[in-house]
This record gives sequence, C-alpha cells and structure tokens, in this order.
Amino acid sequence: MAELGTLVLLRHGQSTWNAENLFTGWVDVPLSEQGETEARRGGELLVEANLLPDVVHTSLLRRAISTANIALDAADRHWIDVRRDWRLNERHYGALQGKDKKQTLEQFGEEQFMLWRRSYDTPPPPIEADSEYSQEGDPRYAGLGDAMPRTECLKDVVARLLPYWESAIVPDLRAGRTVLVAAHGNSLRALVKHLDGISDDDIAGLNIPTGIPLRYDLRDVDGDLRPTNPGGTYLDPEEAKRAAAAVASQGR
Amino acid sequence: MAELGTLVLLRHGQSTWNAENLFTGWVDVPLSEQGETEARRGGELLVEANLLPDVVHTSLLRRAISTANIALDAADRHWIDVRRDWRLNERHYGALQGKDKKQTLEQFGEEQFMLWRRSYDTPPPPIEADSEYSQEGDPRYAGLGDAMPRTECLKDVVARLLPYWESAIVPDLRAGRTVLVAAHGNSLRALVKHLDGISDDDIAGLNIPTGIPLRYDLRDVDGDLRPTNPGGTYLDPEEAKRAAAAVASQGR
Repeated sequence: MAELGTLVLLRHGQSTWNAENLFTGWVDVPLSEQGETEARRGGELLVEANLLPDVVHTSLLRRAISTANIALDAADRHWIDVRRDWRLNERHYGALQGKDKKQTLEQFGEEQFMLWRRSYDTPPPPIEADSEYSQEGDPRYAGLGDAMPRTECLKDVVARLLPYWESAIVPDLRAGRTVLVAAHGNSLRALVKHLDGISDDDIAGLNIPTGIPLRYDLRDVDGDLRPTNPGGTYLDPEEAKRAAAAVASQGR
Repeated sequence: MAELGTLVLLRHGQSTWNAENLFTGWVDVPLSEQGETEARRGGELLVEANLLPDVVHTSLLRRAISTANIALDAADRHWIDVRRDWRLNERHYGALQGKDKKQTLEQFGEEQFMLWRRSYDTPPPPIEADSEYSQEGDPRYAGLGDAMPRTECLKDVVARLLPYWESAIVPDLRAGRTVLVAAHGNSLRALVKHLDGISDDDIAGLNIPTGIPLRYDLRDVDGDLRPTNPGGTYLDPEEAKRAAAAVASQGR
C-alpha cells in the first residue's frame, strides 16, 4: 500500500470585507493587500517546511482561489493540478451577508450574535432571492439545483463538505500526494471537526488563523484517515496563536 | 448530439524575458508588468464579447498560468475548472534558451537564426543537462521520462501537442463547453496549423499576438473538429494586426 500523503489546510488571507468587518459568506469579495501579503507568506512557509503540494483543492470563491494562486506561485508550485468545488465554500451567512458585524452585534445583542456566529445548528435567517448579496442565478452554482443553500449553520457545512472530503480529497491523499486545501474559516473548521473528532459544543471554541498553513499527518484507522498529530501542526505556531486570538475577538 | 463548444486561444502576455529579448522556451520566467496588463485586457475582451470560458487548459509555465489567472479573474471566471499539461508548453528552445536574440542573430547570421526560429523541422542544438537553463530534475516533468525534450522544432511541438488536443481539449469541446487555452507562441501555432490545415512551409509566416483572445467556432467534419471561421476571429482585430507585426520583427 502506498504511503498516505500529507494534508495542508490554508485559510485565505484577509479580504476587503474582513477589513471592513462585514459578514461575507458566499459574497465573492477579493483579497485586501494585506491578504495578498499573507498568501505570499503562506507560500514561503511551505517552502521553508519543504512541504510542497502536488495538488490543490479550492472553493469557488475568489479569496480562496487567489490565496492558492499567490501561495503556490511563491512556492514555485503554480503548475500543480487544481480542483475546485462549491463544497469548500465558506458557510453561507444567509440574511447576514453584507451586514456590518459590529452593527449586527449592537442590533441583536450578544446572545443572538454569538448564536449565529458560533452555535453548531442554528443558521441565520435565509437570504432573500432579490438581495444584492444573494448568489441566485450565479452561473458557478447553476448545477446545484435544490442543494443551493440560502443560509447555513456549521452543521450544514459539515454535511455538504464531508462527501467532497471522502470522494475527492481522500483519494488524492491515498495516492500519496501532498494536498493543499485553500478554503475558509468555517469550511476548514468543519473539516478539522471531522479529522480531530471535536464535539458539536467544543468546535465553537476553535478559530483557524488566516494565511498560516496547518499540516496534518494521517494514518488509516479502519478505513478512516485520522491525524497522527491531533490538532495539526501550524507552520508558524507563534503567529498562529496570535492570529487565532484576533479572529475570536471579531465584531468587538 | 450536443452543440459543439467554442475554442478560445490566448497567448500569454509579455514576460520579463520577452522584454529583455531573450530566448525563453521552457525557462519559467514571470510576466512583466506590461504582460499582466495585457492579460487583464484579454479578460476584459472576453467579457465584452460575452465569451465566457467554462474550462481553462494551460501549460506548466508560469507566464501562461498567470495570464490565465489574471484574465479569468478580470472576466469573473476565476472559479472554472483548470487543466494543465506540459504538452501545451512553449517550444523547447534547446541550447538557445537564455541567449539574447539580437546577439544570436549577429553571431550566427540571418539564415541560421531564421532557420532556428521559423523552420518547421530544424531544432536548435540540444541543451546541456548542466546548463542553468535546463529543466533537468524539475519535479513538474518528473513523469516524462524519455519524452522529456532537450530541444524542439515546431514539428516536434505538433507531435506532442496533438495527442493532448484529441484526448483532453476535444472532449471538453464536444461537451459543449467554452474552452480557453492559455499557452505560448509556438504551442498555439502548432494548434492553429492543425485546425486550419496550414502547410509546413506556410506556418513560418504565421505570428500570434500576445494577450488577444482568438476565437474558433467549430464543426465536426468526419470526426475532426474544423473551424467554420478559418484563421479564427481575434476579439480585437486592429490590435492583433499591429501586435503580430511587432512579433515578426523580434530580434531586429
């Protein structure tokens, strides 16, 4: 049997809407200049760790795609195979998409705000089809039909992400490849929840910093891929700690 | 039967070595700032023509990959499927890689220079394995084995390109998709030679300008895809004419 490949998770760098403190979800905003710098640094960390991807999986959103492009270019791995899927997209934030996080906190109060942000199974209200922040009619989602979300909680993200993990990412890992997944705070939290067996309650406390590759070494346990380094290993642990704290305080 | 898709060819924008007038071939140089501007303009032309790719095929070289990334981002099609293959690479320029075009012209004379640049079946001398401009040991070509070229004439490019055309690009076209091929002067000349049935002699006179999408509408003729618009249609015909003339005068 071939040796299992290595999994590397990379959350996109700061977007223009992160910088403005807006709920983004499926709205397709670009990276900020700081986000581009983070992506380049992510690629440099891959080189320093000699952890060179053979294939990259991205969401269909520009901030993850640009992060992958910039990081791979910096790592001289721009030429590797590319796979994209909506199942790696950020959580759909429903009617909150486009709203200011601080205003939302003030308007709805701490309890409701944290429920929408961090509860496992309570989605925000669905987005109206005619909202300027709806993805209704976007050609990249034309094939989804009834699977097209109008809002999601983290539980919904887990449910749509895991079939992609099993059918698309695991086969690349079983082929012995180093696999980069360039995605989002919540799609990566969903994946980490599965990998590390984190409970529905405990996942609320987990924040993944932007732009710092997170390595998982894997072994096969009764047909499931499980980490030999639970929690994964950040390529820049000090910076990861500082950045995770900053994410946790968003909206304040 | 599904309607055939549309083929769009895009030659990468100016690279740093184009700007310095050096033979490049398989050396993996980046776009110049002008090249990035050309790529963005290429994407804008796709939007203006409402010719939006569903899938992109690129070479394994940074200047074609970056051109595709920039053009697709400008056209809001950054999220489409991506396929990459060495068979779309620029012609391998052998021992000329890294050499100044003007110096080479002066050193070897007009006749030898034009033979290397434009003859159909005379390759330059092969590159030495220990040359700093050799791709020996480059991981992206690790799977090629004996197929790895050390020099190529245009005939060699046709020979390695056509299997990829048939096995990878044609199926996307038969599926009705709009297919963008982001590649190089000589890999695109090889493809155009095949599509338009240009003779070994006449292909010498054909120059493809950088950054201007070239559309081919196709029909099935006894199992082969043939253009209904022979020679294709440039999305900016005036600029294409001016740019092709500039390419023809390189090295002067």
